Amino acid sequence: MAKMPGRVFGLGVGPGDPELLTLKALRLLRAAPVVAYLAPEQGHSFARSIVAAWLEDRQREIAIRIPMRPGAPPATIYDAAAAELATELDHGNDVALLCQGDPSFYGSFVHLFVRLTGRYRIEIVPGVPSTAACAAAASTPLVTRDETLAVIPATLGEAEIARRLGESDSMAIVKLGRHFPKVRQILRELGLHDRARYIEHATLPNQHVSPLACVDAARVPYFSMILIRRRGLIEENG
Amino acid sequence: MAKMPGRVFGLGVGPGDPELLTLKALRLLRAAPVVAYLAPEQGHSFARSIVAAWLEDRQREIAIRIPMRPGAPPATIYDAAAAELATELDHGNDVALLCQGDPSFYGSFVHLFVRLTGRYRIEIVPGVPSTAACAAAASTPLVTRDETLAVIPATLGEAEIARRLGESDSMAIVKLGRHFPKVRQILRELGLHDRARYIEHATLPNQHVSPLACVDAARVPYFSMILIRRRGLIEENG
Repeated sequence: MAKMPGRVFGLGVGPGDPELLTLKALRLLRAAPVVAYLAPEQGHSFARSIVAAWLEDRQREIAIRIPMRPGAPPATIYDAAAAELATELDHGNDVALLCQGDPSFYGSFVHLFVRLTGRYRIEIVPGVPSTAACAAAASTPLVTRDETLAVIPATLGEAEIARRLGESDSMAIVKLGRHFPKVRQILRELGLHDRARYIEHATLPNQHVSPLACVDAARVPYFSMILIRRRGLIEENG
Repeated sequence: MAKMPGRVFGLGVGPGDPELLTLKALRLLRAAPVVAYLAPEQGHSFARSIVAAWLEDRQREIAIRIPMRPGAPPATIYDAAAAELATELDHGNDVALLCQGDPSFYGSFVHLFVRLTGRYRIEIVPGVPSTAACAAAASTPLVTRDETLAVIPATLGEAEIARRLGESDSMAIVKLGRHFPKVRQILRELGLHDRARYIEHATLPNQHVSPLACVDAARVPYFSMILIRRRGLIEENG
């Protein structure tokens, strides 16, 4: 008798604080015989570190090792990972695929999703995304009332970033890293510099929130964000 | 001896499924002597219903009743609510202020935040926002790679909605309700109609996902959303 194939759970494990895991993600994580996650070639997986306290020896772990070089990792890595997960699924084992933040928000999850969708049942379990974490860290609402929000990767070209910044009420610039100086310059030119706040390692013990002027551009991690509100809160929402 | 004033916790309780509460929100909710939430003039509070199973008789509940008429509720309601919370805070009681979704994402929380900030310690606890919930319900990533995301309230004018829809890779149109026919017409004109997906009551038992063509415009609730990706996933992320 053929076994029912396993299911894939794309588990959002939140932005970093292990307490920002949802009850649902925790339940599915503990029930999964196989736990998979992305990791650098050497060293530990950030997504795994968030849930490390809950993992048990009975669970098989699959680390999908991604070279940390600039540019997209070769498709063959995701092909091989999808094949490894498929073997587990074909044996009837559910796979919890850990995704830092929310799986649908810039998650590497998409690379496995496109390779497994249609062949296996996949459920996305939403998590707390980095935008929510950074707004909480900066102690500011992100959007209120009829405001628009633009989420803009810092990896885009200057003209495109500037154009998008000109058009929204609230803006989140993600994927900063080495692009920080370029973004800071654009914000200066648009007169938005003084309204911007920089957040790194949101919800982690080393969380840091500061004005742009105080940021050391040489030390900006990839997982950092700039939030900008065009208007103040008090005058709009009193 | 003067008592230390209490703290305000803006608790994101997630989009609706009680299991999408975070461990942190649950811990702070159970520890709070006072639990406050917005509610309609008659009937139950959606935010309260999400955590109802965890509430205990020892907790004082403050329902902030908001008239469900079009337009912003009078500022006096929030003034009175802030004063009631301030009385509790002055007595040294922490207040858990329940926010459906994420407090920073279109939360009515902002009205109390602006009235209490500076006078009391306020901590925002991020939650799973409706965008993440709807993407999970539609089983689609929201943004990947270098894509931009625009979040657009359907309450804006036609020209403004159309302009913003023309400029992003991925779009979430929120606050649909009676604005649904207008939005559907705009999407038709922009040729985005067939790429759009409609989601209502995401993560709840009556969750419903459908193409726009199948939506009964007369029955669209305020808490519904349209998600649109300009490009497909497979060709971009293979």
